[in-house]
Parts: sequence; structure tokens; C-alpha cells
Amino acid sequence: MKLICQLLFLFGFLSLSMFVTPAPASAQLITFPKQELIDYTVQNPFDRMPDGRPQVPDDLIERARDLSSEEVWAVLQDKGYNNQYADGFQVLHPGKMLVGRAFTVQFMPVREDVDKVAQGKAKQTLGKHLFNQTAIDMLQPGDVLVVDLFGKKVGGTIVGDNLFFYVNQATHGGGLVVDGSVRDLNGISEIDMPAYFRSVDPTPIGNVMLTGINVPIRIGNVTVMPGDLVVGDREGVYFVPPQFVQEVLDKADETHIHDEWTKKKFAEGKYKSSEIYGSPSDPKLKQEYEEYLKKRLDEIHKQRSK
Amino acid sequence: MKLICQLLFLFGFLSLSMFVTPAPASAQLITFPKQELIDYTVQNPFDRMPDGRPQVPDDLIERARDLSSEEVWAVLQDKGYNNQYADGFQVLHPGKMLVGRAFTVQFMPVREDVDKVAQGKAKQTLGKHLFNQTAIDMLQPGDVLVVDLFGKKVGGTIVGDNLFFYVNQATHGGGLVVDGSVRDLNGISEIDMPAYFRSVDPTPIGNVMLTGINVPIRIGNVTVMPGDLVVGDREGVYFVPPQFVQEVLDKADETHIHDEWTKKKFAEGKYKSSEIYGSPSDPKLKQEYEEYLKKRLDEIHKQRSK
Amino acid sequence: MKLICQLLFLFGFLSLSMFVTPAPASAQLITFPKQELIDYTVQNPFDRMPDGRPQVPDDLIERARDLSSEEVWAVLQDKGYNNQYADGFQVLHPGKMLVGRAFTVQFMPVREDVDKVAQGKAKQTLGKHLFNQTAIDMLQPGDVLVVDLFGKKVGGTIVGDNLFFYVNQATHGGGLVVDGSVRDLNGISEIDMPAYFRSVDPTPIGNVMLTGINVPIRIGNVTVMPGDLVVGDREGVYFVPPQFVQEVLDKADETHIHDEWTKKKFAEGKYKSSEIYGSPSDPKLKQEYEEYLKKRLDEIHKQRSK
Amino acid sequence: MKLICQLLFLFGFLSLSMFVTPAPASAQLITFPKQELIDYTVQNPFDRMPDGRPQVPDDLIERARDLSSEEVWAVLQDKGYNNQYADGFQVLHPGKMLVGRAFTVQFMPVREDVDKVAQGKAKQTLGKHLFNQTAIDMLQPGDVLVVDLFGKKVGGTIVGDNLFFYVNQATHGGGLVVDGSVRDLNGISEIDMPAYFRSVDPTPIGNVMLTGINVPIRIGNVTVMPGDLVVGDREGVYFVPPQFVQEVLDKADETHIHDEWTKKKFAEGKYKSSEIYGSPSDPKLKQEYEEYLKKRLDEIHKQRSK
Amino acid sequence: MKLICQLLFLFGFLSLSMFVTPAPASAQLITFPKQELIDYTVQNPFDRMPDGRPQVPDDLIERARDLSSEEVWAVLQDKGYNNQYADGFQVLHPGKMLVGRAFTVQFMPVREDVDKVAQGKAKQTLGKHLFNQTAIDMLQPGDVLVVDLFGKKVGGTIVGDNLFFYVNQATHGGGLVVDGSVRDLNGISEIDMPAYFRSVDPTPIGNVMLTGINVPIRIGNVTVMPGDLVVGDREGVYFVPPQFVQEVLDKADETHIHDEWTKKKFAEGKYKSSEIYGSPSDPKLKQEYEEYLKKRLDEIHKQRSK
Amino acid sequence: MKLICQLLFLFGFLSLSMFVTPAPASAQLITFPKQELIDYTVQNPFDRMPDGRPQVPDDLIERARDLSSEEVWAVLQDKGYNNQYADGFQVLHPGKMLVGRAFTVQFMPVREDVDKVAQGKAKQTLGKHLFNQTAIDMLQPGDVLVVDLFGKKVGGTIVGDNLFFYVNQATHGGGLVVDGSVRDLNGISEIDMPAYFRSVDPTPIGNVMLTGINVPIRIGNVTVMPGDLVVGDREGVYFVPPQFVQEVLDKADETHIHDEWTKKKFAEGKYKSSEIYGSPSDPKLKQEYEEYLKKRLDEIHKQRSK
Repeated sequence: MKLICQLLFLFGFLSLSMFVTPAPASAQLITFPKQELIDYTVQNPFDRMPDGRPQVPDDLIERARDLSSEEVWAVLQDKGYNNQYADGFQVLHPGKMLVGRAFTVQFMPVREDVDKVAQGKAKQTLGKHLFNQTAIDMLQPGDVLVVDLFGKKVGGTIVGDNLFFYVNQATHGGGLVVDGSVRDLNGISEIDMPAYFRSVDPTPIGNVMLTGINVPIRIGNVTVMPGDLVVGDREGVYFVPPQFVQEVLDKADETHIHDEWTKKKFAEGKYKSSEIYGSPSDPKLKQEYEEYLKKRLDEIHKQRSK
Repeated sequence: MKLICQLLFLFGFLSLSMFVTPAPASAQLITFPKQELIDYTVQNPFDRMPDGRPQVPDDLIERARDLSSEEVWAVLQDKGYNNQYADGFQVLHPGKMLVGRAFTVQFMPVREDVDKVAQGKAKQTLGKHLFNQTAIDMLQPGDVLVVDLFGKKVGGTIVGDNLFFYVNQATHGGGLVVDGSVRDLNGISEIDMPAYFRSVDPTPIGNVMLTGINVPIRIGNVTVMPGDLVVGDREGVYFVPPQFVQEVLDKADETHIHDEWTKKKFAEGKYKSSEIYGSPSDPKLKQEYEEYLKKRLDEIHKQRSK
Repeated sequence: MKLICQLLFLFGFLSLSMFVTPAPASAQLITFPKQELIDYTVQNPFDRMPDGRPQVPDDLIERARDLSSEEVWAVLQDKGYNNQYADGFQVLHPGKMLVGRAFTVQFMPVREDVDKVAQGKAKQTLGKHLFNQTAIDMLQPGDVLVVDLFGKKVGGTIVGDNLFFYVNQATHGGGLVVDGSVRDLNGISEIDMPAYFRSVDPTPIGNVMLTGINVPIRIGNVTVMPGDLVVGDREGVYFVPPQFVQEVLDKADETHIHDEWTKKKFAEGKYKSSEIYGSPSDPKLKQEYEEYLKKRLDEIHKQRSK
Repeated sequence: MKLICQLLFLFGFLSLSMFVTPAPASAQLITFPKQELIDYTVQNPFDRMPDGRPQVPDDLIERARDLSSEEVWAVLQDKGYNNQYADGFQVLHPGKMLVGRAFTVQFMPVREDVDKVAQGKAKQTLGKHLFNQTAIDMLQPGDVLVVDLFGKKVGGTIVGDNLFFYVNQATHGGGLVVDGSVRDLNGISEIDMPAYFRSVDPTPIGNVMLTGINVPIRIGNVTVMPGDLVVGDREGVYFVPPQFVQEVLDKADETHIHDEWTKKKFAEGKYKSSEIYGSPSDPKLKQEYEEYLKKRLDEIHKQRSK
Repeated sequence: MKLICQLLFLFGFLSLSMFVTPAPASAQLITFPKQELIDYTVQNPFDRMPDGRPQVPDDLIERARDLSSEEVWAVLQDKGYNNQYADGFQVLHPGKMLVGRAFTVQFMPVREDVDKVAQGKAKQTLGKHLFNQTAIDMLQPGDVLVVDLFGKKVGGTIVGDNLFFYVNQATHGGGLVVDGSVRDLNGISEIDMPAYFRSVDPTPIGNVMLTGINVPIRIGNVTVMPGDLVVGDREGVYFVPPQFVQEVLDKADETHIHDEWTKKKFAEGKYKSSEIYGSPSDPKLKQEYEEYLKKRLDEIHKQRSK
Repeated sequence: MKLICQLLFLFGFLSLSMFVTPAPASAQLITFPKQELIDYTVQNPFDRMPDGRPQVPDDLIERARDLSSEEVWAVLQDKGYNNQYADGFQVLHPGKMLVGRAFTVQFMPVREDVDKVAQGKAKQTLGKHLFNQTAIDMLQPGDVLVVDLFGKKVGGTIVGDNLFFYVNQATHGGGLVVDGSVRDLNGISEIDMPAYFRSVDPTPIGNVMLTGINVPIRIGNVTVMPGDLVVGDREGVYFVPPQFVQEVLDKADETHIHDEWTKKKFAEGKYKSSEIYGSPSDPKLKQEYEEYLKKRLDEIHKQRSK
């Protein structure tokens, strides 16, 4: 679907040389310099992207495809992080997990005096106007585009099917979370990338200004930091601070085995639920479980080390 | 599901000779004589149905099956028609487009003194009581039944599976839009006709009176005129005034080609999104696009003229 | 998903000998002794379960798999039972009917002084703490677990995938209705048991106390009695008092035949809807229908008596 | 507050000679000729206004100032009129009763093709454009302006403080009920006329077209007929068909006396509530009440006949 | 307003001898025998009413008139009682504190088979039908009537102005909290008793059955026990377990003095807020405060001991 | 009401020397340096505060007390500023105008890793922890405290009655707008400062972190800039960019006179509404109005220049 010309006055765009390097995020109203980003994500145990974001490694991202909201919850609540989960979205492909690194974008209601200044700065530093594609053009493989459009429906459509197609290409199927809307749902439905949005509307994005790229944003009750690991299932989306990723994944291995064993025992039909679950009440069963757990963990680790 | 007898006192019905011709719409509380309908749809460029409704031609209806909400939006907002879209419905078959001519029906909360007069008039002019089937019996192939039941859930069920089956037969799969509810969802789900409704309830229609057939009605924020082209996708429903149908369809051809080309370029992986979309920034790419557009339009027109 | 240990202080659990017989329901805040249950369901025409609940026979439960909400509505409204239907649920498997005997459970917001007394009583009478699994362990084949968690989302999750798996085993696929939430939706989706819930959340059940097992509870606008026949389709859930089950099923046989015949006539394309439906207006058609009805009923009865 | 010029293109206005007689209601999209109005309100026992509306007499309107919603409910539900009550409004002056004859106005979402035709007709028949003041200029003493603006907030503001002032003058304090909004709440609050509205907004009315004057309209779950007696208290608004006005008022006399006596007995502190209310259980008390009722009714009638 | 006769079939009533002693609560569907009530409120430090409810002393009830929601919150959250507060009510007299002992009543949706049994039991034990006045007749001075009508609006009206007048008399101005509605708001507004309700409707109570008197009930997120101290201000209602009443009141004395002193210091205009509040940062100010606190507490205690 | 100690770990506080000068706003997660503020409010025609905010002069603030939402709307929509109005608040004192300069504060959901860094920075630069009083201590006479607490109710209480008292003192009655809640409503109601909030709750502020002081924030659909003129009436709140203040006030003078004249003419009872309003249709009346306008404007200007 074509972005309609009449609306473009809000953002405009110019020809520019190809493959721009990620722009210094200084043209927007809200800025969050690379050093600030590094300071505020100091617990990150991994490398960083060129733009300063923590870079959760690709192999951990792959492992995260087996997570569920509950497995993330188990570790994060234990750490006292109770504000990392957002739900209430329409889920585009309920059976497809969302996993990737948060690339955050913030919009605010347009206000001409402010926008004029921002656009002036953008022209100077970027050589072009600020608009949604300014951020979209910066996406990297493994990114999930996370957008604060403050729940806007009409004119809160971050992408239609063309840009959704582009995001899929650029992020290698990373995904989209928008506290706002999308358009062209018919077209989008045919593209196999996970997406979480509040609503759908035929209007293009408008009456807003791009105010931040890779700044801290709020999605529901979550403060999302650039580089958070984004994990979405049928229920909702978790934003996992990088320092907890390894632990979340390791605990999830145990949970998967626990669930495997629990269901196996239930399937035998000999036990009441409380004899087996949360954990076996009979010491012999407990031992059986612990041996099973050890054996299966070993198998998993061997397989992974190949 | 049988319409339960106890409720029928509201509407009742009588034996009548077969194949009644469309009744003069004068028995209802709100009337909109054929001449008024013609006057108020004076911009209609097509023929008219015997009841006076604009008759968008069958071949255009077929072409409209490829439309999306965004393509209709693009033309209508350009004309200043911003009140032609309704959403917030449950969509029965999300992958199936709704297309057809609006056949409008209006209900209001029952009020015995008024209903009694209307029923008296109906008996005189129609030889039978007014009830939902009075309107349903008038449906023609290509019609979409569009019903204002003011969002009513309990007793706001325009049809169950039997009448839904009939509507499908009578309209040749045209479809249903109701600002109200349906019943027998299990049965309805098995019938391959598009339908948009607010809710589902086991009660039959009741505590309402039929107040208008093919009168102007309101669905959400839309004033729907009899004969409007109804177009529904996964997002919602557009009611297109007949005078804009041709332009909507022609512009959509271009958009389809634009999207085709845009995605093809994105798939090459060489461009940032803003270099290609909304329109190519590089003059050479622009020319490439324009040649592609011309070629594909020619192909489409040739194919259509066969 | 493991029930997280930190939350267990609310309920706790102890080792106990296997296969406990259904506990006397006297440990909970709200009690409903077996004799009371029998008194208040005095119109039950069937046998009773050992716990006193009416036992709708298995063959009627099987026949009930062909019911729809509308068919239950038809009989119950005729009897003046207008408060037996609840909707507004998320339906786990929309194409799969829910049928079974109501096993009711009630929770209330936790209040430590009250809970402490209840837990003390539970230890004495049951030898263990009260928690959700206390009720789940009592489920029998053919039961539907019906839970009043007063619409709670966070901490209102009656089961995750492990316990959902257990409920499926224990009830032989009976099902779940909860005015509250579930967790582990990804895992639950893979288990082929019908379920109706208000929402989904990653938290385990918490901040509540189990206050009643097989007591009268309220789900939406329904007073549910233990042993009611639970019937759920795509629309919602009916709770049928046992004394009406036979009549509901017999009337439904007629309705199925009526719908069969009606659609067959509509498919012939010769009639307006009101000539055939609700009932045929032409005496000859009426007779045709009545003969068809008689013939088909005979066939059904023969087949069933085999 | 000035109606802002930019918005006026929707309605426009022209100089016209003073004191126009009520216009024939034929310029709007929805028409309801005087004869139709008379036919559909055939049970009206009173005279009629020049425009055909039933004219509930002034003395009955005065007596209606003592009514409450419950007293109207008592008679109307007895007659089977269950759809005459609307609530959910903001009530401007909660302590001030709303009483008068319904003057109904209907708006629908603007649609240029339709509006153009209507405006053309209006110029011919009225010599001016159609807009909200077209209806407001027709108001008579004793009228209540009842407006269907389909719940619209932004641009759904039927009046600001200037026109509210005018309505107060023209109707002699009759009042306003709008399923829409008002503006200038600060100014309106200082004017002592009852008003019921859904919301408040600073925008002037816009993006709508006037589609009917003194036609049947829907307010919430009520079909309002022109000339209905409008009665509003702290709770909501009743629209009383003229044929029931006398009975409502007479029954209310009895209820007032009943309440007077009941509270007097309660104040004595000697009785349990059920000994006195609904009606006295002790035959002696019953007789006491009946004598009191008779005496007080006589007093009232005497006073009224003065 | 008279309770309309047609509705009374639900409850009915009979003549009965005057001044019945509080009925054994055994006629209702849900029972909570006196011994259970005593067991579950074992921490009660005060005397008990004849019906077993904890009897918070009259002088403490008087002192509680100076409480605010925040002062109750301060103690209860400290004890881990986070589920004792309900809000979202319409507050009848926002400036008037609600204070008293909880007298709880529960209703559930009517179900004829169950209601018939309950009514039969009621006739045997009470000599009359069960209906809302059964409970109302039992009210004692100092009680607050707390009613679970599950949020019902239409037919969920626990009282109109006559019974509200009676409740005021019987409880000596105690008050009303209903998770449901009231009727006759005009009349009720003139009676100076605090009341908290969800909505207002002209219908009398109906389509429900009285299922419990002085049983544990749920109001919003609170499990209310009979005899709880009910405290309501402009914000909402706290249900205070009797064992915490003394501490709540004593802490509130300190808070009142703290606030007095804080505002006095702020009024001097010499300090930033954080220098004084939560507690003074300067040791000299801290001492000044502590001396002030001691002096004022002494004064209060002296005055109280008079 | 005392801020409860257990919650204070979130913010903490330290003794500090009196009368700190406004802190450099660099300790928070989101920063907006003074130069940025100046750049983005470049159209400000007035002086600036020491912190860089535009300083709408005191006499214009005084004149703004006579404004209404509609008068601000009239100018701002004309300039294309359609996103400057927020409503849906509880208004503390509906009859009291809110006028002052925006002092903005932003909170986000707490996240320990981020908060820890921010608190570390705050200790270094401010010598104390960041918490709500950090911002409150900076308030100046004429300020309105405008707070983004993202609609939070529980734990979203920016102030209780003690701090509300302080804000009143520090701002000289300026006022409060919070997209969140307040506590101690009983106490707050007695303080004569305008306040707009979403809800009320007994909990103190918690589970949030202070992320910005005098940064751009979003309130509803408005981008609020520090130093905007805040104008609130019974309907809602306008945030007026400083560059439009003079024009808004001057146009409002004319509107006041226009309304004065219009009502005067209506009060004469000789005109239909459309003859006088929006503007007089009769040229003679038009002239009369224009002379009246001129005369009254002269009077106003004379009075003001005194």
C-alpha cells in the first residue's frame, strides 16, 4: 500500500546516498547518547552493537525460541523485576515465537513548533527529514522493532505491508512490537514475521513526530531499554535485561525437563496431581525425577556442544 | 435453530402468495421513497436496480475482490469522504473478502404504540406482519445485507444459521454486516459467506421493531446509503459511494503494481526502505518503476479486455 | 511450567498417601454439606455421584456433544430459567464442544486471619494444606472443572500446562471453565481439551484462598450448582440443571431435523425465507415437513437403540 | 463562545426574515410528515401543536415536576413499555427536574454527496442552509430539545453557552437531552436549565449533517417520538408516551402519600421494615394506611381544583 | 417509591410477630453458622454481638470518624493485609465519613429450583419468605449494610428511599455499601446517611435470590467478614479486621499530629518539602517535631480520658 | 498522611543544605539540557526562567483566568495546533480556573538496573536520591506541576495532602495536572488549589522511577513543553505554546464581548437564534454589534492600562 502523498508533509524525505551508517541519534527531541546507553546498561555481560546496544549473542537468541512467558517470569520475578511484561496485543501469528534485540522508537503527538526545530536539526545532521523510515532504515539482523505510539489507532500505523516486508528483510524475520497500530493487515498476514500491535487502521501514520531512536521507552508497564532481549509468545511480550538472559535460558532447560517428566507421570494415570506437581512428594519419586533431570540436561548439553 | 415461537408475537407472519415483488417500502416507520433515493444518490454513474438503488456493475464487483481497506481509503480521503469506514466487528471468515451492494435495514427499540401502527400499515400494504424476514425476503444476488441494530447483543440477532443459509443463497454469497449480533455461530461458521457482527448471542431477535428497508442508516461512523459498494477485509468495512467505485478500482491497480515492484526491490536486499518507498529517490530507479508500472498496467488491461 | 516456590506459602503441600478418597468438603470457608447439595438439587432425575452431585448419565453427555447454545436456550427460557448462560470467554478450541458435569470450585481474595483458620482445619481433616490442587485431585471422569476466580487475571491462573494436562487425564477430556485466567497458553494450546477463560497471564495462582469445593458458585450471571450439565460452544457456556437435560436433548433432535429440512428447501431456491422458516406457511409444505420430521426421528431412535 | 467560521462551511447560514413559521420538515434526509406523526401517535389523548406533535397540557407538565424515575417506571413496565428509559448522562443540575415535550432532532455522519442534495432542498424550501440552528429556531415554550448525535464527543456539541442561553429563553427553561456533547461548560453551568449530555468538548459541532427534525429518534434504548413527555431526575430520563401521562401522575400521587406514611411509621421506631413496607402486614395498620391515603388524596385534589 | 407488586413473587412476605430475634441464618443457600463465624474471627479482641459478630466498641467507632483511607492503609499493608480496600463506587455524601460494623448480605442470580428449596426452608424456620427485607429487618445500631449484588444494575437495587430511610433509622445512621445499585436517588439524596453504590436504576430488586446473611462475601477485591470495621471516605471503603482497629486508630493519632506539624512548617515558607517531609532531615527539626508529637498526644489522651 | 517508610527504599532521601538552587537536570534517565529547551522553544516571545523555561508574564497569567477551553481552541485550531488539549480528568474544584507555567515531570515503571545508575548519578550531582520530592522542591511561584505517571492508579499517587499543601505554598496556588493519581483526597479537598488527576488511591507513590524534570512529556494526546501556559476549566486542560498566549487572550476579549451582546439580544426575546448568532444576519444589527464591540474593547483597554 502506498504511503499517501498528502500525509507526507509531516515527515517528507529526500534522496540520500545509499547505506548510511547508523545516524547519531541527535536529531530527535529526546536524545540518549551512546555513552548514556552504555552507562545505563552497565550490567550487560555481552558485546555491544556499533550503536552501543547490548548484543545478546545469536546462539542465545536461537535458544530463546523455546521460551515461554512463564519461564521468563520465573527468573525475573525472583530478581525483583516485575515490570518487564506487556500484553493486550493482537498477535499476528500466534504459533510463531518472537525473539530478538530491542530497537526502540518513540513518537509523540505532533506539535508544529517542536517538530520544525527537530526537522531542521535532522536536515543538518542526517541530510533528510525525520520520519518513521528514518528509524526503519537503521534496523539490523536480529532486531525487533519496538515502537511507542502511545496506543494510537488512527494515524498510529507504524507500517503497512510494504514496510513490514522491509522490516522482515532487514531484521531477518526479527519482528515488531508496537503500542499503536498497523495497516494493510491482509498483506501483512501473508508475511511470516511475528508482530504484536494494539489495533489496525487503514490510515497511514500521521499527526505524530518521531521523538527518539534507541532511547528508553515505555510499552504498557515496561521500561524498555535498547538491546533488551524481546521474547513474545501467544500471551504477550517479555523484555529481558541482557544480564538475565543466560540464567533465564538455563532455568528454562530445567523447566522443560520438569514438564516432560511431570506429564509423563501424569500420563501413567497412577498419581494425583499433588503427588507429582509442583515437585514429587514421595522421596523415591523425587529421586527418580532428579536422575531424569540430570540425564536429560546432560543430553541437551552434549547436543548443544556439537 | 428454530426461531422460538414465544418471541414471534413481536413480528408474527402470515401465509402469503409466493414470490412477492419487492414491497413498496411504505409500511415502516421510516420511509425513503424511490424518488428520494434517486435524488439523494444523483451522482450514481451506473444503472439502477428496480427498487431505485444504484447498481454497481457485476464486473466491477468482481474486481473489488482484490481491494483492501487502504486502497479504498486512499481515494475516499482524497475526495474528503472521511466517514465511510466502520470497524470493531467480529469477522467470520478473515481470509474472505466481502463485496457487494448495500441492502440496508434499520431496527429501533420496540414501542408498542408505534409498532401497532406500523404492523397495521404492513398488513394493509404487504398482507403480512413486519419482521426481519420481510427485509430478508427482498434480497437480490450481489446484495450485502447491512443492518442497524444499534449494537444490540441480547435480542439483536439478525439471523441464525437457517436464515444465514438463506441470505447466502439469495445474495449468491454476498454477505452480512450487522451493528448487532448473530446466533447459531457453530452453524454459521460452516457457511462460506463473509459476515461482520458485533457479538453473538443465543437469543432470537426480539424487543425491536423493523423501522426501515433501504433507507439511509448509520453503521458506526458511516452514513450508509442503499446501493453503496460494500468492501470488507480483515480490518473492517468500507461503504463506497457508487460515483467513486471506478476510480478506487483503477487506483488500486496501480497500487498493486507499486507494491509488487517495491517488494521485489526490497527482496534484492540492496536498498534502504526510504530509497524505494513511498517512491524511489534515485531518478534511475524512478524511471525503472515507471516503466514497470506501464508494462504491468498494459498486461492487466489486455487480460481484462479478453 | 513449574509452580514457583515463593508463591507456595499461600497453599503449601505435604506428602500424603496415594489415592485419597474425595475429602469431606468441610475444610473450606464456605461449606455445602452433601445433604444440603441433595436437598437443593432435589429435582435431579438421575443417580448421584458418591459426593452427592447429580450424575447426568454418560450416554446423555455423549448426545449433548451435538447441542448448540440456541438449543439449550430454547428449552430453558421456556421453563423461565434465564440465568443459565455465561459468555465473554476466550475459547481455547472453538471447534470443539465442551460437555460434562460441573465440578465447582470457589476462590476469594486472601485474608490471612481467615486463611490461617482454614488451613488449620484442612491440616486436621485432610492432612494437608488447601490449595488449587486440593480440588483438582478430586476430579472424576466426565467432570468439567468450573472455577470462580472473580475475573482475576494476575495471580488468577487456575492451571498452567502441567495441571491442564492432568485435568485432561483425570476428566477424560472433560474441560475447564474459569472466571479467571490460565498460564502457559503455548503449552495448553497443544492439549485437546475444551477450555473457557477470561484471560491469560504468566503469573502462577496467588493472593487468593480456596474457599469452596462443590459449593454453589457464580459464573457471570449464572448460579452454578455442582452436577449441572455444562455445555459450551463457540459462543459461550450453558449450565443445564439436570432435570432439563432429557428435554433439551429431545427438542434438539427435532431442531436438527427442522434445520436439515429448512436448508434443503432453501437450497432448492424456489422459496422466500418466510415461506419456509420459522415453519412452512403452505399447508402442503407443512405436511411435507411433518412427515420428514417423523421419518427422521424414527431413524434416529432406531440408530440409538442399537 | 463564537462558533468558529472555518467550521461553518458545513452548515452555513443566510439572512432571513424574522419569525419564520415552523418549516415544513421536508428538507432533511429523513422526513416524517405531519400526517405520519399523527398516525403514529394516534393514542394521544390531548390536543396537538401546530406541527402535529401531541401537546401534553401545561398543568400536567407542572405536576410532572414531582415525579421520579421510579414512579414513571411503575406505570410503564405495567403497560409493557420497557424501553422508555435512558441513563448514563452527565446531569448538569442534579437537583433540578427536567420536564417538557420532546422536540427531536437527528444528525448523521456527514457525507458530502448526500449533504449537498439536502442543502439544495433546504435552500429551496427554507431559503437557507440546514444546520443545528435550523432546529433550534423552531423551539417552543415547554419543549425539551432531544438530540441524537450518536454519542459523538468531538464535533458532537449541539450547543455552547450562547445557544444554550437561547434554548433556555425559547423553551422557557424546558431543557436539553443530547446523546452527544456540549461545549462551554463553564458558561452553561451558570444557566439554570436542566441538561443531560454524554460528554463535553471544546470543538464546535462539525463533521455531521442534520438529517431530521421531529422525526422518531433513538436515545440509548429508547425510541423517542416527537411530543413525548420528557421527565429527567438525578438518575436518567424517561420518555413518556402521552397516553400514559395522566395515569403516571395519578399513581404518583398515591406513591407520594404511601412514602410519606411509610417514613412516618418507620420514624416511630416501633416496626421492622417488612411490617410496614411494601404494604402493612397487620390488618389494622393496613386500614390506618388506607384512611390516610384517602384523606391525603382528598386534600391534594381540593388544593389542585383551586 | 413503592416496591412494585409484580416483582414481589420473587420474594413475597408474610405477616409475622413483631421484633423477631435475629433469625438462625440457616434458611439461605450459603450458611455460616455462629460457631464458624467465631472460629474464623478468632483474633477478635472485643466482645461479640448476639449473632456472633465481633463487636468493635462504640467509642472506637466514634474515633474512626477521623480516619482516612491512607491511615488504614498504613497499618494494614504493614501487616500484609493488601486486599481490604474497595473503590469505584458512587459516593452519596462525599463529605460524610462511613463508619460501622459490617452486616453482610449475599445475593446470587435467581434459579427457580434452588430458590424454591430455600424459600421452603425459610418458611419453616422463619415463617416467611426470604427477600431483601429479611436481612434489613435484622440490622442493629452501628451496623453498615454490606451487600454483594455482583455489580448488578437493573434489578440490583438493594433499597429505594423508603428502605434507605429504614436502614438509617435501624442502624442509627450506619450506612450502606452495595456492589450493586440503589433506586429513588432523588429521595435517598435527602437522607443524611453515607452510602456507596455502583449505579442507580429505577427498577426494584429482582431476578436474584438472597443466598446468605452474615456470611463471608466478596466486595471488589476484598473478602469481607461479618463484624469487620467498615471505614469509607471520599476515595473508597476499607474493611478493617477487628484485631487491627486499635492500632489503626492509635497510629492515626500520630499521623494527624504529624500532618498538623508538617503543614505548620510548610506554612512558614522557609523549607523545601524534603527538609520536612516524610520526616525532618535536620536533627534540630526532628527534635522539635518529636516534642510536638509528645505534647499533642498527651493533650489528646487527656481529652479522651475525660 | 505520612509517606510510609517501607516504600521509601525506592527513593530514599538525605539531609541537604537549605534552598538548593534548581538542580542541573542531568541525573535523570531522560535529560533535556537548558540549551535544548531554548532551541525547541525558540518561538517564545517572553523572557525565560533561570532554568530556561519560557516565562509567560504574570499579568497575562492573570488575564488567562477568564479563559475557557473554547477560547483557546479557537486560536490554536486556527494555527493548526490540534494536539494541545487533554481531558478525562477528575477536577478537584470545578469552579476554579487552573492557570500557570508548566513544570513537567516524567516517571517510568521502575527497573532496578536503570534506577540504580540514575540514583548513583543523582547522589553525585544532587547529593541525594531521586524521588518525587526532588522535582517538587524545585517548584516556583506561578508553576503548574504537570506529571506523566502514565495513567497509573495504585502507586501512581504523585502527592498526598502534605505535599499538595506544599505545592500550593511553593507555586502560590498554581496547581497540579497528573496523568496518574493522588492520595488523601479528604485532606486535599480542603486546600484551595486547582488539581486534575485520573484517579485516587490510598497507596503512596511506588514501583516507578523519576526519569525526567522539565523534559517534553506526553499527557493524553498532548506533547507538553516546559513553560507552556496551562489553562484548565471544568472540561479539561489546554497547554498553550507561549507564542500564542497574547493572541489567545486578545481574541478572548472579543469573544467575551460577543457573548455578552449575543445573550443581551437573546434576552430581548425578539430574535431567532440564527438572526443573532454566530454573527447578526441583519446589516443594522451587525453594525450595532460592531459599535458595541468597539466601545467595550476601549473600556477594557482603558481599565487594563490603569
